[in-house]
Amino acid sequence: AAPTSFANTLKGVILDMCGVLYDSGEGDGVAIPGSIEAVQRLKQSDLQLRFCTNETQASRDRFVAKLQRLGFDISVSEVFSPAPAAVSVLKERGLRPHLLVYDGLLPEFEGVDQNDPNCVVIGDAAEKFSYQNMNDAFRVLVGLDKPVLISLGQGRYYKETDGLKLDVGVYMKALEYACDVKAEVIGKPSPMFFRSVLTDMGLQPHEALMIGDDLVNDVGGAQGCGMKGVQVRTGKYRASDESHPIVSADGTVDDLKEAVELLLGHRRH
Amino acid sequence: AAPTSFANTLKGVILDMCGVLYDSGEGDGVAIPGSIEAVQRLKQSDLQLRFCTNETQASRDRFVAKLQRLGFDISVSEVFSPAPAAVSVLKERGLRPHLLVYDGLLPEFEGVDQNDPNCVVIGDAAEKFSYQNMNDAFRVLVGLDKPVLISLGQGRYYKETDGLKLDVGVYMKALEYACDVKAEVIGKPSPMFFRSVLTDMGLQPHEALMIGDDLVNDVGGAQGCGMKGVQVRTGKYRASDESHPIVSADGTVDDLKEAVELLLGHRRH
Repeated sequence: AAPTSFANTLKGVILDMCGVLYDSGEGDGVAIPGSIEAVQRLKQSDLQLRFCTNETQASRDRFVAKLQRLGFDISVSEVFSPAPAAVSVLKERGLRPHLLVYDGLLPEFEGVDQNDPNCVVIGDAAEKFSYQNMNDAFRVLVGLDKPVLISLGQGRYYKETDGLKLDVGVYMKALEYACDVKAEVIGKPSPMFFRSVLTDMGLQPHEALMIGDDLVNDVGGAQGCGMKGVQVRTGKYRASDESHPIVSADGTVDDLKEAVELLLGHRRH
Repeated sequence: AAPTSFANTLKGVILDMCGVLYDSGEGDGVAIPGSIEAVQRLKQSDLQLRFCTNETQASRDRFVAKLQRLGFDISVSEVFSPAPAAVSVLKERGLRPHLLVYDGLLPEFEGVDQNDPNCVVIGDAAEKFSYQNMNDAFRVLVGLDKPVLISLGQGRYYKETDGLKLDVGVYMKALEYACDVKAEVIGKPSPMFFRSVLTDMGLQPHEALMIGDDLVNDVGGAQGCGMKGVQVRTGKYRASDESHPIVSADGTVDDLKEAVELLLGHRRH
């Protein structure tokens, strides 16, 4: 199926990053052929454009700088990662967070009222996951009438050059058990995460399209919010995705280049 | 029901401590009337005697010293708490632990081969629950073909004078999620815990009796192992225990004094 039938109703496109724009690997990784130009074409069109990643290790600044080095025209304000999505949620719901996050993420929460906290936000805090800091977060939660725990992702672990390291999901589970609460996870495929991108664009779900390589988290997650979802045959795409028992993409294309060509070619001007 | 019908087949008695021997409270707490003499009578009988507690905060040394100050004739070698029970299990199964426990507990693991670890044992490690130490424990687990995680208890938190603190169960849940394993919990009512006491006494389950104030964890746990279980009406006993829908004690007596009088009075000499 080609993603053309809905091209005219679209007002915005959201792009997954790893596996759509570039493949990770040695150093910065490699741009996927045609993707730099495809981003450029979208920017010159009348469509709004945002980027959406579950990246939690690098700050957006560092992450965006990498993409720029690869040749992409991209700026920090266009990139959605769990931290700024959480900020939207916090403001929307009047939540004042106690933060247990990586130092490099703290600037993302500037301007958010952190006095007299009424929720806890945890990210991949790495070395900051000390017993003392975990106790502090726990005490905030048990002191609340209705504890709210927001977790920036739910990963188990990741690999760094010096070995495997525990990810935020592990400490999320720890606090869930301690307080008998269920965390709200921000990141794909969470509807809350996609909605925060839509809010930023000022669009309704049916006006937006997600393009990703991950059928379940990108395509399925977007569709679960009422958006369209197109899968590219790059990154973590597998042939079996096209006969997936649950998720069926609104279109499948070879790569971002083809997706953009079809989309823009079918739009009235 | 009086615990007399099985008195003649008994070869050993296991006593819960808090709520059977003493009530906790200010300072060392208070010995329950008659319990000091009851322990003395058991020691002078032909029955083997062990003590069994889920105490994990204090080392056995400190814990036993408290009981001695209250007037009990008791020694460290007679007391079973999760740590030494774990040592029995480790030796029985040829497990070499990577330890993540409180410093004060380390002496309990002397003599246990800790080279080339093939399991992880976590206790209430408090300040030692650092990100680095958690990563170290995690790496041992994921490096094993069949990860074995042993947890000394599964408590959520406890109260200290300077506030609430996270207990071992929280970090157990963290490592369970990280490695997709189910921890083996040592402590009442775990059958593994009771079996390690039986192994130490060299007795079969039907030859031993557990006396406790906790119907589910003491009495039910012991019965689940094939032991007899008698409840005392001291400590956390509640009248409703005597009509509990699931656990039915092999006898219910007013206190340890009465239990011992009935037991020894019905034994042939």
